[in-house]
Amino acid sequence: MSDEVTLFDKIIRGEIPSHKVYEDDHVYAFLDIAPQSDGHTLVVPKESKAYLHELSDDAAAALGRALPRICRAVLRATGATSYNVLQSNGAASGQTVFHIHFHIIPRIEADGLEFRFRRHEALAPERAAELLTKMHGALSGES
Amino acid sequence: MSDEVTLFDKIIRGEIPSHKVYEDDHVYAFLDIAPQSDGHTLVVPKESKAYLHELSDDAAAALGRALPRICRAVLRATGATSYNVLQSNGAASGQTVFHIHFHIIPRIEADGLEFRFRRHEALAPERAAELLTKMHGALSGES
Repeated sequence: MSDEVTLFDKIIRGEIPSHKVYEDDHVYAFLDIAPQSDGHTLVVPKESKAYLHELSDDAAAALGRALPRICRAVLRATGATSYNVLQSNGAASGQTVFHIHFHIIPRIEADGLEFRFRRHEALAPERAAELLTKMHGALSGES
Repeated sequence: MSDEVTLFDKIIRGEIPSHKVYEDDHVYAFLDIAPQSDGHTLVVPKESKAYLHELSDDAAAALGRALPRICRAVLRATGATSYNVLQSNGAASGQTVFHIHFHIIPRIEADGLEFRFRRHEALAPERAAELLTKMHGALSGES
């Protein structure tokens, strides 16, 4: 998947026009052309990876650094005070373009957007212990 | 809001116990005790800010760098291949704890979770131009 040239690769290269909000060595941001709300912005790493867990440390740090700056610009431009940042990985998550992208979605009360939490079951201590053992094992293998 | 001691400040300090997944100088991650799906993890900057747009460059870069690593651990522990990363700012966004936190939510097909996009209206070119003027003005004021 990561070897394919995506829509966002073409936008980053300027082969497809975009409403560019921000660009630096690692990051490109532009207005979503099908906005969920006024000011809906996409923030994309130039590193062409499908999923967030594939992103390199350097690209991820640059993306993290840029996000609050771009959020400030979105709020200033729209006057919004609430927003969601949403990023999707894999078909079951709703991902449709397989190049990492963070949505910045301004929110107002009763706007009809749904990013709701549904479940209300407590974490079972046994499952927590199992997960942590596996997660700590995975993280200890990171450089 | 940012001057208040939040639930997450207390968790970071160890005053309230948590199922700790990861910790470094800037970042603390732990299992959500009311998981939306198996392996639901929260990633929090130690810098105590309510909203993402308030986060410092250094803390944001560290948070960005940690996110893919923690996502890899969540996938390894759960066997999930899809997931959403969701972060909420302000009451209209669904935020309830006013300390920045990123949700990593493993997803499976037909799991009943909803992070759906609802609108299907195209961005008006005039509005795009207005937004970009304001966003570029805001970003040019960043150091």
